[in-house]
Amino acid sequence: MRTLRRLMAMVVATACVSAARAAAPETEQPPTKKPMTTAEVLAASTPADWRTIEPQNTIYMELPTGRVIIELAPQFAPHYVANVTALAQQGYFNGLWVERVQDNYVAQWGESDGKKKPVGNAQRKVAAEFERTSRGLPFVPLGEPDTYAPEVGFSDGFPVALDPKLGRAWLIHCYGMVGAARDNDVDSGGGTELYAVIGQAPRHLDRNVTLLGRVVQGMELLSSLPRGTGTLGFYEKPEQRMPILSFKVASEVPESQRTPLEEFRTDTQIFTSYVEARRNRHEEWFKVPAGHVDICNVPIPVRRHTGVTPAH
Amino acid sequence: MRTLRRLMAMVVATACVSAARAAAPETEQPPTKKPMTTAEVLAASTPADWRTIEPQNTIYMELPTGRVIIELAPQFAPHYVANVTALAQQGYFNGLWVERVQDNYVAQWGESDGKKKPVGNAQRKVAAEFERTSRGLPFVPLGEPDTYAPEVGFSDGFPVALDPKLGRAWLIHCYGMVGAARDNDVDSGGGTELYAVIGQAPRHLDRNVTLLGRVVQGMELLSSLPRGTGTLGFYEKPEQRMPILSFKVASEVPESQRTPLEEFRTDTQIFTSYVEARRNRHEEWFKVPAGHVDICNVPIPVRRHTGVTPAH
Repeated sequence: MRTLRRLMAMVVATACVSAARAAAPETEQPPTKKPMTTAEVLAASTPADWRTIEPQNTIYMELPTGRVIIELAPQFAPHYVANVTALAQQGYFNGLWVERVQDNYVAQWGESDGKKKPVGNAQRKVAAEFERTSRGLPFVPLGEPDTYAPEVGFSDGFPVALDPKLGRAWLIHCYGMVGAARDNDVDSGGGTELYAVIGQAPRHLDRNVTLLGRVVQGMELLSSLPRGTGTLGFYEKPEQRMPILSFKVASEVPESQRTPLEEFRTDTQIFTSYVEARRNRHEEWFKVPAGHVDICNVPIPVRRHTGVTPAH
Repeated sequence: MRTLRRLMAMVVATACVSAARAAAPETEQPPTKKPMTTAEVLAASTPADWRTIEPQNTIYMELPTGRVIIELAPQFAPHYVANVTALAQQGYFNGLWVERVQDNYVAQWGESDGKKKPVGNAQRKVAAEFERTSRGLPFVPLGEPDTYAPEVGFSDGFPVALDPKLGRAWLIHCYGMVGAARDNDVDSGGGTELYAVIGQAPRHLDRNVTLLGRVVQGMELLSSLPRGTGTLGFYEKPEQRMPILSFKVASEVPESQRTPLEEFRTDTQIFTSYVEARRNRHEEWFKVPAGHVDICNVPIPVRRHTGVTPAH
């Protein structure tokens, strides 16, 4: 049953892509059924299959080694995103550090040493936004069993778990997801300390901490940092920390200095083909198709904006 | 049902641990039912809950930054392990490099640039050992649904998937697992190029490539390497590669230079408590218990050998 559904989705998507490639006359042979690789799926995509990552929804964190770009998720953490935006606007993070890198877990930056830098018109604490109602949430199911959640899928490029009975949805701690560190009190975070996942998805953090975005470029600048040797991967000496040169909302950076990015849409027919190509790899190297795919093994492609305005 | 089973297992294990801590008189209150944290479980373990990692089954890969220690898995890849051991014995890897680091995927070392270093009495190619019979395999089920396999669990510390219908078992590509790179032909690997997983478990590689061990110490020396900027994360300039100073079987290293390690046994009652502590975290920080745990989110603890000979 599942196999059939998948096959149909793939056929539809393949047909759709082929149609986009060339409007074939009706008398021709049907398009080839050969399953596509992820590279072939992406090559077959049209500008409408991509969406611009909006600059007002984007953070540039400049490290001495380069730019880390974060897409924010206001649809999941509206107050945290607003607060992090306010912190960025007043230069809160500039001159602070990546203070903690724990292997196979997280890289964390911001407020450290227990020192409290003034937050100006932002807040130091924001009430937890661990989950939200699933009502009104765009959601494309992955169609796979998941160890942790009743249902998983995508919402505008973000990996999402959903409990249909409870009507609740939450972001998933996949590689590259960005969250707001907190103390033991659930409402003790606020965004003055942020972290990104650098290893196996720590799904036990889901619904325990507020996720507010994901790294869409420059992840390797965080994941390749030396691991801290202190407890929880904190650096033991100040000089080991990686300084943050600046942390700005992209819309407040001169246009000439921006990195215009677009993200593969997760609400399209061709995205179904992309997932299928991740589920069963058809590159020559692969011999045994997995038949399944974990939500965190479907990375959403991001590319430099082509300059063509998507049709949507 | 599952909850009950888990609870019972936990109670048994808790009782067992408490008994080991102090032989309480029978008239005392029963031991506390407060669920343990992973730290508490480990603190309650006895020497018999740990097993020595045998030096003849251990590789020391010396990098300029330190020692990476790999435990081999001859029970899954006997011929690959024998071949890698033969390669190590003749110094095959000494002076070669980590040649490829692809973010959220693998670090790979050994033969590079298409240059073929002589392999002496070892083989360049070994027939694939992607899976084995499950008959006679020690196996402790995790008791969790898995996206990829009918059943998952542990065999002597290694993460294993199992298909009871087919009677087949195979190692899982969790973080830190070590495999033998190959070309398109399934039998084209042999161990002259090895890789370790440095990100989200690439489970689509399971049964597509021979896994032969796991990194039990020094993983951060591989995972924090700069990512290569060439295709598949290959370094583009020779000087970017991390040299391998030596790569030896531990039993052939003078005893004074060895790192004696022991691994938390996965076939004990207390291991059940450890899994439960990973499944539902009871540290004060955690608020919403996950209720589940992925096979790759149960890292097997490894520690410096205490010098006490385990009872088993």
